[in-house]
Amino acid sequence: MKAEILSVGTELLLGNIVDTNAAYLARELASLGISVYFKSTVGDNPERLREVVRTAIERSDLVVTTGGLGPTSDDITKDVIAEVLGAELVMDERAAEEIRSFFRKIGREMPAGNLRQAMVPKDGVVFYNDLGTAPGVGFIKDGKVVVCMPGVPREMYRMWEKSVAPFLMERLAAAGEAGTIASRTLRVFGVGESTCDAILDDIMRASTNPTLAPYAKDGEVHLRITAKAPDRKTAEEMIDRIDAEVRSRLGDAVYGQDERALEHVVGDLLRAKGLRLATAESCTGGLIGEMITSVAGSSDYYDRGFVTYSNAAKTELLGVDPEIIARHGAVSHETCLAMAQGARNRSRAELAIAVTGIAGPGGGTPEKPVGTVYIGVAVPEGSMSGRFSLPGDRAMVRRRAAMNALNIVRMYLLRGFEGAAKVLPEDAVVRRRPM
Amino acid sequence: MKAEILSVGTELLLGNIVDTNAAYLARELASLGISVYFKSTVGDNPERLREVVRTAIERSDLVVTTGGLGPTSDDITKDVIAEVLGAELVMDERAAEEIRSFFRKIGREMPAGNLRQAMVPKDGVVFYNDLGTAPGVGFIKDGKVVVCMPGVPREMYRMWEKSVAPFLMERLAAAGEAGTIASRTLRVFGVGESTCDAILDDIMRASTNPTLAPYAKDGEVHLRITAKAPDRKTAEEMIDRIDAEVRSRLGDAVYGQDERALEHVVGDLLRAKGLRLATAESCTGGLIGEMITSVAGSSDYYDRGFVTYSNAAKTELLGVDPEIIARHGAVSHETCLAMAQGARNRSRAELAIAVTGIAGPGGGTPEKPVGTVYIGVAVPEGSMSGRFSLPGDRAMVRRRAAMNALNIVRMYLLRGFEGAAKVLPEDAVVRRRPM
Repeated sequence: MKAEILSVGTELLLGNIVDTNAAYLARELASLGISVYFKSTVGDNPERLREVVRTAIERSDLVVTTGGLGPTSDDITKDVIAEVLGAELVMDERAAEEIRSFFRKIGREMPAGNLRQAMVPKDGVVFYNDLGTAPGVGFIKDGKVVVCMPGVPREMYRMWEKSVAPFLMERLAAAGEAGTIASRTLRVFGVGESTCDAILDDIMRASTNPTLAPYAKDGEVHLRITAKAPDRKTAEEMIDRIDAEVRSRLGDAVYGQDERALEHVVGDLLRAKGLRLATAESCTGGLIGEMITSVAGSSDYYDRGFVTYSNAAKTELLGVDPEIIARHGAVSHETCLAMAQGARNRSRAELAIAVTGIAGPGGGTPEKPVGTVYIGVAVPEGSMSGRFSLPGDRAMVRRRAAMNALNIVRMYLLRGFEGAAKVLPEDAVVRRRPM
Repeated sequence: MKAEILSVGTELLLGNIVDTNAAYLARELASLGISVYFKSTVGDNPERLREVVRTAIERSDLVVTTGGLGPTSDDITKDVIAEVLGAELVMDERAAEEIRSFFRKIGREMPAGNLRQAMVPKDGVVFYNDLGTAPGVGFIKDGKVVVCMPGVPREMYRMWEKSVAPFLMERLAAAGEAGTIASRTLRVFGVGESTCDAILDDIMRASTNPTLAPYAKDGEVHLRITAKAPDRKTAEEMIDRIDAEVRSRLGDAVYGQDERALEHVVGDLLRAKGLRLATAESCTGGLIGEMITSVAGSSDYYDRGFVTYSNAAKTELLGVDPEIIARHGAVSHETCLAMAQGARNRSRAELAIAVTGIAGPGGGTPEKPVGTVYIGVAVPEGSMSGRFSLPGDRAMVRRRAAMNALNIVRMYLLRGFEGAAKVLPEDAVVRRRPM
């Protein structure tokens, strides 16, 4: 099956938005064994959209569009496709009711134009939208399929996973074209992309199926293993073999896989051990708490957080001795250790994380340049603080600090006090509580 | 001048790379006053590339390609374009010498195929590459221009800025077409996309230059005004007129513009008034603190945050009476007000935000379904709490809660206690401190 991805929206032609939808869909289509031959982008202009749609339908079996399903008059994707295919649009009652109910819920009156979103192809498929008011639709005509999804990425991702991918898999199976491309992503923290590359070079070179490819992403590395096979089970077994080899070489640096980010993995470990966590954050300003509580059910193991942005807050909320701050500075091993201990003492948690550093762009000094972040934990066996030099801009320094903090907790939960100390930089301060 | 952007490379069709080049070029072309009508992506396949190149040259005056200029046999962009245009390629001595010297420098023998990179159109332009071995080229034929640049982003950006943009500006000037496209984004909170559409419908319909278009984004609406004019000043004046009209209709819902998000605007207001803020977060888990401190310099006005995820933490850190939680629940006006007052009393801040709610997916009840969030503030004049029904998944409920909290603070800083109360839902609890 030959596919084409079509992104609709003038904003994409002005360059204010990077088209991440198209990359997502390309990856997802590949994982179904569908080859993408073209990607096109066109604005909200009926004439040019018509031209692009016509070309796409001519040369491809499947066209997947995103964008142009909104309630406003410049949202014309469905109308143009219906026109090119000679298909009829009709009102879908369930979609219409969902739109009305959305407006009831938020207590606003529904503008009349919004019901346009509930128009769907008479002889097609509807993909309901869990996260917004625009349903997706599938046109089917002369063996060709045109799928239209909203342009808002989260809505589109959800719709794809829940409805569109299963719909396409069924069609592939019916056409006897089902083979599968399966993939798994191993998530790696603490080993950079080029080091992964060097360690895994021979596997990457030797393997064409499965393939193994590293991607740097948001402070961690994702190793993507992709296998093509007649069925899912065979593909998974092929992946398992590479997976095992990668894990044997990278060890604990592989912390999880697929959608399970560090905060999920740490949460699972805390719950399994029946331990609770508290956080004391300075330069991360609440980010670690936010990451931990982004996981549903985190109230099982997350007790509380202290965002001690000012020095006064460090003293008043965590009991950090003002003398320590005066002598060593707010960004120091001593303050970090005192913050971690304070958070542990002043909460009901057995484990506490502390972070204090210079996220930039201002505030750096020759001794403590931007990116200097002290990260520590206090646990029943004692406490420890490491001085990290984190690259990147303010957002990236904060993110890397939060991830390192979570990783120390992970290593403590997996490998104990000494195991946690091992992921700190060499000049770390480690204080064991006397037995 | 009508332009088209063409990205060449099979890796882009597999979705492992997001095409940031195309977004960059779209923005850059717009800033030269060149309208981009299409963007296309195609793999390293001669037949399909030929088809796309032919279509692009037919419908556009300028085609800008990236990718496919490398030294390997699947780098075919220049060959295919030369073939379609009937242009001749010749060896460029300077480019060839730069390639040879690159290999001398890194001490490796040059593979013979690499000199293919020095082939350039006989009647065209060469754009030398400061950062790599592949020069860019410009084909000129029958008034049409095809520019080819490397796909490596840093090489492409440099080449564009240094050589290609000046080359295009010269051509525009010669054709008497020099002009500029400027744009401004007004950021709107508290009025949905379709309501904006209804309120601004006549402006959007009437205007082709400047244009006005709404986009829903992360819980807010962005209104984009784009003007085309002979020079920047005229374009800005055209934008100013639409800007003023939009603001007069939407009032305080327009909170800022361009890159200044709600947390920047609130920060600016706090700094200007010399006031400090504290946060007490339950269901947002640190997100509000994280947003506020994502702004460099936020230590000027952000004092501290309490992430009181458990009930015990609400009582121990904020002094919320356990009786209140027992009687009204942790998700209630009464708890929200007590949290806000507690955060104000136990900090050095004049203003405190409190948020407590049910972010989901679990935890909802018929009386308090998922998305029910109480958001309140305590300020010198008193305190208030509003019950919000926020749509979306866990991440979206949390984000909308945080934005509503910041917006209440913004309205307080702009319009005082009564002004803040106005952006709460109707059944809000508002307690004025006796004078």
